[in-house]
Amino acid sequence: MAAIDETHDGALRSWVESANGHGDFPIQNLPLGVFSRPGEAARGGVAIGDSVLDLAALAGSGLLEREALEAAGAASGDTLNPLLALGAGPRRALRRRLSALLAKGAAERPQVEPLLVPMAEATLHLPARIADYTDFYVGIHHATNIGKLFRPDNPLLPNYKHVPIGYHGRASTVRPSGAPVIRPNGQTKAPDAEGPSFGPIARLDYELELGVWMAQGNELGQPIPIEAALDHVAGLTLLNDWSARDLQAWEYQPLGPFLAKNFLTTVSPWLVTMEALAPFRIAQPPRPEGDPRPLPYLWDEADQRGGALSLDLEVRLSTEKMREQGLPAERLSRGPASNMYWTIAQMVTHHASNGCEMNPGDLLGTGTISGPEHGTQGSLMEITRSGREKVTLPTGETRTFLEDGDELMLSGRFVAEGAVSIGFGPCTGVVQAAVPFK
Amino acid sequence: MAAIDETHDGALRSWVESANGHGDFPIQNLPLGVFSRPGEAARGGVAIGDSVLDLAALAGSGLLEREALEAAGAASGDTLNPLLALGAGPRRALRRRLSALLAKGAAERPQVEPLLVPMAEATLHLPARIADYTDFYVGIHHATNIGKLFRPDNPLLPNYKHVPIGYHGRASTVRPSGAPVIRPNGQTKAPDAEGPSFGPIARLDYELELGVWMAQGNELGQPIPIEAALDHVAGLTLLNDWSARDLQAWEYQPLGPFLAKNFLTTVSPWLVTMEALAPFRIAQPPRPEGDPRPLPYLWDEADQRGGALSLDLEVRLSTEKMREQGLPAERLSRGPASNMYWTIAQMVTHHASNGCEMNPGDLLGTGTISGPEHGTQGSLMEITRSGREKVTLPTGETRTFLEDGDELMLSGRFVAEGAVSIGFGPCTGVVQAAVPFK
Repeated sequence: MAAIDETHDGALRSWVESANGHGDFPIQNLPLGVFSRPGEAARGGVAIGDSVLDLAALAGSGLLEREALEAAGAASGDTLNPLLALGAGPRRALRRRLSALLAKGAAERPQVEPLLVPMAEATLHLPARIADYTDFYVGIHHATNIGKLFRPDNPLLPNYKHVPIGYHGRASTVRPSGAPVIRPNGQTKAPDAEGPSFGPIARLDYELELGVWMAQGNELGQPIPIEAALDHVAGLTLLNDWSARDLQAWEYQPLGPFLAKNFLTTVSPWLVTMEALAPFRIAQPPRPEGDPRPLPYLWDEADQRGGALSLDLEVRLSTEKMREQGLPAERLSRGPASNMYWTIAQMVTHHASNGCEMNPGDLLGTGTISGPEHGTQGSLMEITRSGREKVTLPTGETRTFLEDGDELMLSGRFVAEGAVSIGFGPCTGVVQAAVPFK
Repeated sequence: MAAIDETHDGALRSWVESANGHGDFPIQNLPLGVFSRPGEAARGGVAIGDSVLDLAALAGSGLLEREALEAAGAASGDTLNPLLALGAGPRRALRRRLSALLAKGAAERPQVEPLLVPMAEATLHLPARIADYTDFYVGIHHATNIGKLFRPDNPLLPNYKHVPIGYHGRASTVRPSGAPVIRPNGQTKAPDAEGPSFGPIARLDYELELGVWMAQGNELGQPIPIEAALDHVAGLTLLNDWSARDLQAWEYQPLGPFLAKNFLTTVSPWLVTMEALAPFRIAQPPRPEGDPRPLPYLWDEADQRGGALSLDLEVRLSTEKMREQGLPAERLSRGPASNMYWTIAQMVTHHASNGCEMNPGDLLGTGTISGPEHGTQGSLMEITRSGREKVTLPTGETRTFLEDGDELMLSGRFVAEGAVSIGFGPCTGVVQAAVPFK
């Protein structure tokens, strides 16, 4: 498990001055990504303030050795999968070396500074080629809120508190922040309609989630014990599981969501490493009295002590009209990420408990993270109670679900006493009109 | 759509004499795969009788030109994804050239014969790196049989005859024929138990399916019209969707099957191309009176005329004891593959109808193919009515679900008047004991 060390020192400052404000990328963060500039090949990079440090160039600079060099070399191609496959050791060595090279007063500044690229000039890509994408359902308040819409007296199904429920998603349609959200066409059936119809879906929604990027995997047939689960995790991202609620309602029985979810998933392009977020790990809230204790394969005291995150999440919406009028985006919700009933380690261990092969670059979504109160829910389905209540915006416009031209923004900030706050960078998308089809 | 041409000529024979019997790989088949020999790199090959023609060697032989050369070149690496991405033109050109080179009397025999590898010396791999794997549910008798176990009076859900139901599966655990079937551990709950428990699952089952290998894909956001759907399909395979029924029953609500299915999926390693099976395409059976007509995006008269397959499928079981006693495998079921409610084109078009990006090497399963009568069902869940009725074997052993040591074999033969029959080769697996875990 990543320990708190000198790279987290709150007094540490960078000679990259833009890293010393209140942005997402101070020297304590050093998230990993893949970037390119026009006409150049994509390669690994590290965000520092408003710049990206080119890892391919750094690997060739002579400034690294041993494990740190191995890590930067593995990050020199157009995906970080080779770096993820190396596991935690080289990744941590690279972090320690980057922290020293970028710290105020570093003697190597003259050699490092030319390796910085202004983030404004960089196109950010997915950090890894996604091997498989799985979405969990560990936000208990989301599961409860959604369940209540269908079963007011019995919102959670009997397996929920025993099984970290998950299902497979579509890897091919995960995109980095900024990718357009093309309104999908789909087959839907209004409750009072005689039969289904096909066309642009009406109930377009978002889901506020965290994404988990997997590091080295396991062999087919071999489980991952919970004590070792986080050694298989490289880091986290923000994740928006765009959802077509009307399509979902008609298609999902009996095998689960399919076209309602697989038209797009957006992630923030920077992978915030497990090392970076070490200071923000907090105890998993105790299970409410009367809840079952998980089976032994899912239970580890150390995981319970540090399995939750001190992380504030926020969702904002901006309509076309709001942008025309120069109005700031309106907050739809804000809440802590400590509302997850299962820890990341429990998700990983459960996933591999049947021998399922996990691979570097696998992406796991947590499922929607909602709080129990109004203003903390992570989807419009919950906020508007399935479209029954409207959200009113500063322009006087109202929304039950997303409309064409709407921009939806997720953000997250890790906060802890005595630690410098870090964030993910943007995770946004603008809704575009559907493509005409039949 | 692939037409019947001289490569299907029933009088055509090969100078590879083993191709002229009643095996799966006569010269009319020419399925594509990836093979290796000890110490050598994996590369593309074509099955002919009991041999594999090395496509990498053929590409370098000077015997090919233009599109056929392009296709063989794209098949020279360790996956066929580059070949699949080329689409139908080069694949068909290669087929025509292979048919001429391997035909009895071909002048090029002296140059081609050294490029043959005995299949017995070849290790067969997956033909493609699987981008995404999706499993459908188009076997209406399977859906009805399973539905009856839970809802005797109303087995099919209201969406079934409108929507080709599908869900995402796990790409990382698809393996070629012969891979061991390690009994998974899992969380299960007996109906009368107070709580769940964890350990080796008891109700291990198979599912007889066809797999569809995708050729070139579509852009994210762009649908695939049904008239063009089969241009995106490279060919078919047998597929066994191994299933843990007790795990499935406890985990699958509300998001569908997950660990119950993702511990292993076995495919036959040879991709039988759409060109090879052209003579075996038959009309889709008319929908029963009273069934709804599909929405326009799923309807194409030409697809209905040739959307089903004249293909006999069979499942056989052999226990350890039967093998010790030298007894042949026992047939569990036999039936036609024309029991699918939706065509392959409908599956593809539905999948991309919301703009979901499809890619070369995507694998689609049809879902279990069962007939309505006893002896035609494609899973033990159906044959034993959820374990209520036993199958008795020649040794006197009985089975409700699979036991350790059992070997399960799928096979399929395309048969049509005036056409030389072709097949898939083996799709088998032997069940091994669970790995000890907590």
